[in-house]
Amino acid sequence: MTIDSVEFFDLAGKSDDLRFSPHCWKTRMALAHKGVPFSTIPWRYSDKKLLAFTGQGSVPVIRHKGKGIADSWRIALYLEDEFYDRQPLFGGSAAIALTQFVNTWVDTVLIQTAARIVMLDVHNAMLPREQHYFRSTREKRFGMTLEELVSDKAANLEKLRLELAPLRNMRAKQPFLGGERPMYADYCIFGMFMWVRCSSDVTLLDPSDSVYQWNEEMLDLFNGFARRAKHSGTPAAECLVHTTIEDEDRRIAT
Amino acid sequence: MTIDSVEFFDLAGKSDDLRFSPHCWKTRMALAHKGVPFSTIPWRYSDKKLLAFTGQGSVPVIRHKGKGIADSWRIALYLEDEFYDRQPLFGGSAAIALTQFVNTWVDTVLIQTAARIVMLDVHNAMLPREQHYFRSTREKRFGMTLEELVSDKAANLEKLRLELAPLRNMRAKQPFLGGERPMYADYCIFGMFMWVRCSSDVTLLDPSDSVYQWNEEMLDLFNGFARRAKHSGTPAAECLVHTTIEDEDRRIAT
Repeated sequence: MTIDSVEFFDLAGKSDDLRFSPHCWKTRMALAHKGVPFSTIPWRYSDKKLLAFTGQGSVPVIRHKGKGIADSWRIALYLEDEFYDRQPLFGGSAAIALTQFVNTWVDTVLIQTAARIVMLDVHNAMLPREQHYFRSTREKRFGMTLEELVSDKAANLEKLRLELAPLRNMRAKQPFLGGERPMYADYCIFGMFMWVRCSSDVTLLDPSDSVYQWNEEMLDLFNGFARRAKHSGTPAAECLVHTTIEDEDRRIAT
Repeated sequence: MTIDSVEFFDLAGKSDDLRFSPHCWKTRMALAHKGVPFSTIPWRYSDKKLLAFTGQGSVPVIRHKGKGIADSWRIALYLEDEFYDRQPLFGGSAAIALTQFVNTWVDTVLIQTAARIVMLDVHNAMLPREQHYFRSTREKRFGMTLEELVSDKAANLEKLRLELAPLRNMRAKQPFLGGERPMYADYCIFGMFMWVRCSSDVTLLDPSDSVYQWNEEMLDLFNGFARRAKHSGTPAAECLVHTTIEDEDRRIAT
């Protein structure tokens, strides 16, 4: 482990290498963007005690130089500050504020609609011992059963496609939210896409959609880093095993 | 007129001092933000020939140092570049790209819903000789009569309030999209608010809503510049006459 190496506590599903959390994907892409060497620690809700050093009970969390930093937004700011001499994630204080707005849009609009499409798939992608906690907290939050929440996937797919209109129309003007290249605002949206991609079989977008093209370009980043991520339904033989992904993380990140 | 003075062609309604165009409001606030002296020229759809020097047929347009610049986005970029030593509208290239995304969100989401609330009011706020052109082009664009377009204002008000959720939730983290102070991204949203405010009697927001607070702070900018804008239903005695507004523009802008 080099001096700069980061430990990343990442939500894991029914296998250690199944990683679908949208917020953890924001962090994962931010680490890759900065080119920071990192190793991931598969984390589950029943592992709250592992995060005691941060005072937080959920991931993403990173540990760097003995410090714990929790919350994807705070982690992104930390990485920008700590690795200021590498490719910027934001690009100045105004861009940080604007990215905060975009991140809020993702969390309050896109993720809310995507939840109504994939939440039961996400539940099913977890270890059985995790499912009760996940189900009870999410059912309380949404005020209905997970089955009721995803009872009209078709309507919510249509809604999500409409909600992506700003990204669709932006593509006629520039390739990424960051301009000519992706920045943290792109990863905020992409986290939602990876949540759907890794947990569900749903087809989110038509290949003729410019948002599909944006997502393809995001999947290609860092030598196809995100494209190789395991899907909950992928047979073991078709995906990389855990240690290989970790090695891969390290390779692209250094 | 000083060397820096800008002429601003601004859409006018049934009186010369009634200005409601959301895109012109983006430009108006950008000019005030830069502190650039400007005079406005009330413009109507039947005045297309006045804009021949730009090659464009619609406002906002500005004329500066003999050059014509059309389109609110291009005007904002021009002002940032030309008046680079004044308060920034964006704050760097990443912030420009992110603001482009926010502006696209405003135009493809908020303004589309607001149109379903105020479009008939906007029509009625125009000179009779302008109304036929406005009605026929908008009815063609939306594929229905203006009366049909605004036939369910209550539902669209509810929709617009939901669509403002990212701004509402952002306020818990920072006061403006620009961070501690408003920047062009804030003016993009505010243009929609001024469109509704100047043309319609509809109550968009509850005073307990954090978006209402944001809007109040925007109305207070530059000594209450936008707050004094004429409403289409305001009796003449209650609002500033045209020359006074122009003088006021010049005062706050110099």
